Formats: sequence, C-alpha cells, structure tokens
Amino acid sequence: MCRPEGMKTVEWLGDRVRVIDQTRLPDALSFTDCQTLEDVAEAIVSLQVRGAPAIGITAGFGLALTAARSRAPDLASWAHDLEQAGEVLRGTRPTAINLSRAVDVVLNAIRHATDIPDGQRRALEAAIQLQDQERLANLAMGEYGAELIPSRANVLTHCNTGELATVEHGTALGVIRTAHSRGMGIHVWVDETRPALQGARLTAWELLNAGIPHTIIADSLAGFLMRRGQVDVILVGADRVAANGDTANKVGTYGLAVLARAHGLPFYVVAPTSTLDLRIPNGEAIPIEERSPDEIRRIRDVQLAPANSPALNLAFDVTPNALITAIVTERGVV
Amino acid sequence: MCRPEGMKTVEWLGDRVRVIDQTRLPDALSFTDCQTLEDVAEAIVSLQVRGAPAIGITAGFGLALTAARSRAPDLASWAHDLEQAGEVLRGTRPTAINLSRAVDVVLNAIRHATDIPDGQRRALEAAIQLQDQERLANLAMGEYGAELIPSRANVLTHCNTGELATVEHGTALGVIRTAHSRGMGIHVWVDETRPALQGARLTAWELLNAGIPHTIIADSLAGFLMRRGQVDVILVGADRVAANGDTANKVGTYGLAVLARAHGLPFYVVAPTSTLDLRIPNGEAIPIEERSPDEIRRIRDVQLAPANSPALNLAFDVTPNALITAIVTERGVV
Repeated sequence: MCRPEGMKTVEWLGDRVRVIDQTRLPDALSFTDCQTLEDVAEAIVSLQVRGAPAIGITAGFGLALTAARSRAPDLASWAHDLEQAGEVLRGTRPTAINLSRAVDVVLNAIRHATDIPDGQRRALEAAIQLQDQERLANLAMGEYGAELIPSRANVLTHCNTGELATVEHGTALGVIRTAHSRGMGIHVWVDETRPALQGARLTAWELLNAGIPHTIIADSLAGFLMRRGQVDVILVGADRVAANGDTANKVGTYGLAVLARAHGLPFYVVAPTSTLDLRIPNGEAIPIEERSPDEIRRIRDVQLAPANSPALNLAFDVTPNALITAIVTERGVV
Repeated sequence: MCRPEGMKTVEWLGDRVRVIDQTRLPDALSFTDCQTLEDVAEAIVSLQVRGAPAIGITAGFGLALTAARSRAPDLASWAHDLEQAGEVLRGTRPTAINLSRAVDVVLNAIRHATDIPDGQRRALEAAIQLQDQERLANLAMGEYGAELIPSRANVLTHCNTGELATVEHGTALGVIRTAHSRGMGIHVWVDETRPALQGARLTAWELLNAGIPHTIIADSLAGFLMRRGQVDVILVGADRVAANGDTANKVGTYGLAVLARAHGLPFYVVAPTSTLDLRIPNGEAIPIEERSPDEIRRIRDVQLAPANSPALNLAFDVTPNALITAIVTERGVV
C-alpha cells in the first residue's frame, strides 16, 4: 500500500491522462487511464480524481487530450472543439474555481495558435505549466504555513488536501508535511469527512505512508476535542476564495470555523492563488454543488438509511472571512 | 419495513427478554431473545439495544431474568447472584446513568424479600414498573416539549431518541412526534450521527414509518444549515445529566450546542428524570465511553480507513449547562 516514489496523482502520458482512482483508496492503489474527454469528465464527476488543484490540472490535460485527438479539418473548428470541451469540463463540478480557471488558461494559450499542431503544442505546454506552478505553489505554502504551527502542535484538518488533492505535497496537508519534516513533533487529528470520507480514506493513507502521527475521528468529535484543549490549530484547504476572503470548502469547514472561534483557536485556510476568484465579491455568490443523496444513504454497497428517506448532500459550505485567521498562499500569509 | 402495532423495543416474555436487533435496521426488522444475563449484556454491548432509557429497561429485565434463573439454594446467595449480575450490567456501558439506576432500583426492590419466589416477584415488578414509568414520562415530555416548538419549524436532531431508544414515543423524537400529531407542520433535519449512524439508520426509519417529513444530512452540514436560516430549533436527548445541568449525550451534541449558540438558536435537551444523576456535580465527572476504533475505520464489512491508522472513538461528549436553553423532563421544562 506504500506509495511508489515519484508517482503522480495526475500524469500526462503522451496520448492519455492517468489519474489515481481515489475512490478505491485505501483498499487498492489503482489507476484510470483517460483516453478521451469523456473519460476525463467521468473521472472528475465520479471523484476518481478530486481536490480543487488536482481537478484543475486534470481539466488542463483533458483539453490537451482534446487538442491532440480532435479530427477537426481546420484551426477554427479545432478551436471550437476545444471551446466545447471546456464547457463540458466546467460543467463537471461547479464549486472549485481551479477547474474553470485551468480551462480559461488553456483556451487563452491557444488563442494565437498559427495552425493545429502549434495549437496542440500550446495547449499541452499550458497544461504542463499549470501543473508545475501548482507544484511550486504547494511547496511555498508549506514553508509559509509551517511558520504558523507551534512546535508539538495538535493540528486538526478536514477532507484531503494532500498529494492526492494536488500535484504533490498538498495545501493544508502540505503545511503539515513541511512542519513534520522540520521535526516539529506534530500530531494530526483527521476528520473522517463524511460523506465521501476523504479524511479517513485519503488523508489517513497519506499520513500513514509519510510516517506522520495521526488519529482519525468522527467529524462531530472535533468540537469536544477543542473543548478539552486537545486541538491547537485548524488547517483546511479551499475550493474557491471570493474577493473578500469568504471561502468555499468541503462541507463541515464552516462548522469547524465557528467552533475554532468559540474556543479561541487559529483557523487557517491554505490555498494557492489559483483558488482565488476575484470576479466573485463574496461567499454568497459561490455556487454550492449538491450531489446525490445516495452518497449519504449508502457507503459503497452498504445501504445505511432507508432508501425512501430524503437526504440533502451539499458537498461544500462557505466560511465567512471574519472566521478565518489567515489565508496561506504561495505568495505569503494574507 | 413498517413497524407492527404494539411492538416493543424491549419486551419481557415470561422467561426471556426480547429486543429489536437495532444493528440490523433499517435493512431488517429482527429480534434477539435474551435467555441469560450474558445474552442481555451482549445485546447492550453490541448496540443491538441502545438508547439511555431502553438500556435501563433492558438491564431491569436482565436482573428479573437472573432472579428467575438463579440456582442459588437460599435467599442470601440468590441476592448475591443478583448483586453480581448488577455489576455485570453496570459494566456494559458506562455513560448512560439509566442503566446503573435501573440496577439500583431492582436491587433495592429485593432487599426486603421474604424468600426467593417473593424476591423474583419483586424484581420483575420493579422492572415492569421502570418500563411503565418510562412510557408515561415520554408521553409527558412530548406534551411539555411540543409547547416549545414553533409552528412549521425546522427541527434538527442528533442520534436516535425515539421509540427504539426508549419504551415508546421517545424523548427528543417524542417531542417531534407530539408536535407532528398536533398538525404543526414540522420538518426534521436528521443528523446521520457517525459512527454508528443511529440518525440515518434508526431515526429516519422511525420518521418514515410515522410519516413525518424529514431529511438526512451529514453531521457536518448542521452548522451551515443554521447559517442559512434553515434550522429553527435543536432537540437532543441525554445519557446523563449532572446536578448542575451539564449533559452527556451522543458525540457531536456539544458541537451542535456551540453552533446553536453562535446562531442564536434554542437548544433543548429532552430527558426523563431517570437520566438525572445528582451524585455527580458537573459534566467533568461523567465517564465518557470509548469504543472500538474499528467503528470509525469500518462500516459493517467495508474497510473505510487504513487498518493501521489510529482512530479515537469517544461515544459521547459533554455539553455545559450554559449552552442548554432548557431541559424538558416529564415534570416540566427546567
């Protein structure tokens, strides 16, 4: 179950995009090779690849794939194919801005293409550049963020913001990795993160592989641990940060921020500037994805709740800027 | 899947105690017949029967069963058998005081027994009386509590506090039943209640059978629903209330109380006086049961988290009295 060195969450293989199938972790480390735009869209919708930065990179490669595979006879119709592919990708998951931004970046890159091969080259270069920028951003955030973590801290985190959610290292989990590598003796409380259990399945797996001390908890235990003085700092990622600093992130983040404030604890959002959406003034304008109620009623093949009971499955919530102590970006702490 | 009329969560059948096996709900409505003290203890430990009032009643019948089955040759050794059975039952689950109290009540009842048959009769009568008192208490709490619920309210509840947790009607869910039967047009947000999912599995099943509108949510969505103005009142049960009103209840209750306070919402505990423990001054003295980490790492046969990742599974937390708007008892609202 140990993660091979150099393995990438999202990888361009020349004629296809390979992603780790995160729905099968931690049971099995397996891969999905996306050979078409539809494969890429399906991998994103089904959460095989998830995490705001990672789905941005995947979308970028999805366009590079479309650029390579289009049978369009001329540059204009080829560019039209890419525009359409961009719309398909934007529609897969509405909340994380990274995805939409990656589509913008790649489509901008092909605007001045001289012919189809030139456009294909530009699309791929843009996607690879996005991946490289994300990697560097995560390492920088790790350095900035680790300065905020007290030695021997109990850090509480939510969802998965690690290598699996990014290119490598991670955002909030990247800060944890950096703090751990500095020998700061930290321990991580891992919210299991219902309904998709990214904490229990993915964050715990990453921490175990990295040898970082951690303990998984039910999401609802977080408040009581704060009350008992067993949490020193809360670190989360972000799916979209509005111009005023309001932040959309995995459902449960808002509640944690309220609890952190009530207990006088610092609450940090760790997010690259690619997650910032300056076109949106505040959190109320961020679209919140609603997913299938069966993600609440079932876990894999196990029926948990009556099939006829309604369930509301909002995948994200919004935390107002007033509850956020600081946002850690690759350019510094805001 | 509809619940038969008159069916009881815990039932004395003359020579055995029958409980609904709640671990199999909502998939199957099945029963466990406990023929020995060990059967009763196992049914409690394994959560086949759970809910503070219900395990109190079950423990009472467990002693009545021991009283009937003891092979002790004389009254003194018979009484000793019951004392020992009481210790076994007290050890099954430490947090809910109802269980320990039921043991006290039955052991007190046999103190003046004139012979073994007289003692057997006294033990059974005491257990049946506990059951009857609990039933009446729940109906009374329903009446008092419903006065506190606004018409057309969105009520949020946690865990299961219904018929399955009691004798019938329920505590917090009893208030909801009464409010619904008055035609108040309420809707219930059901916290799924990780890790054992009593909300998704049991509360949703009860509400579906009763025709009460409801929606299941991940526990971590509760705060954001409050923020969006979609919750009017929070109702929970209790496993033990200390003399100062601090209340132990299912893990997650404390966080809900903090969130309710932050959003200016009323937070009511609904608990019969059998849940009150005057010997304990405050919540810090209430023992908190820690259960197997596999309840976090697994759901039924599905491994969710890495088997080697530590998990902390506190079954309860403590809510300080300052966060509780009122406690609804069978004697009125405190």
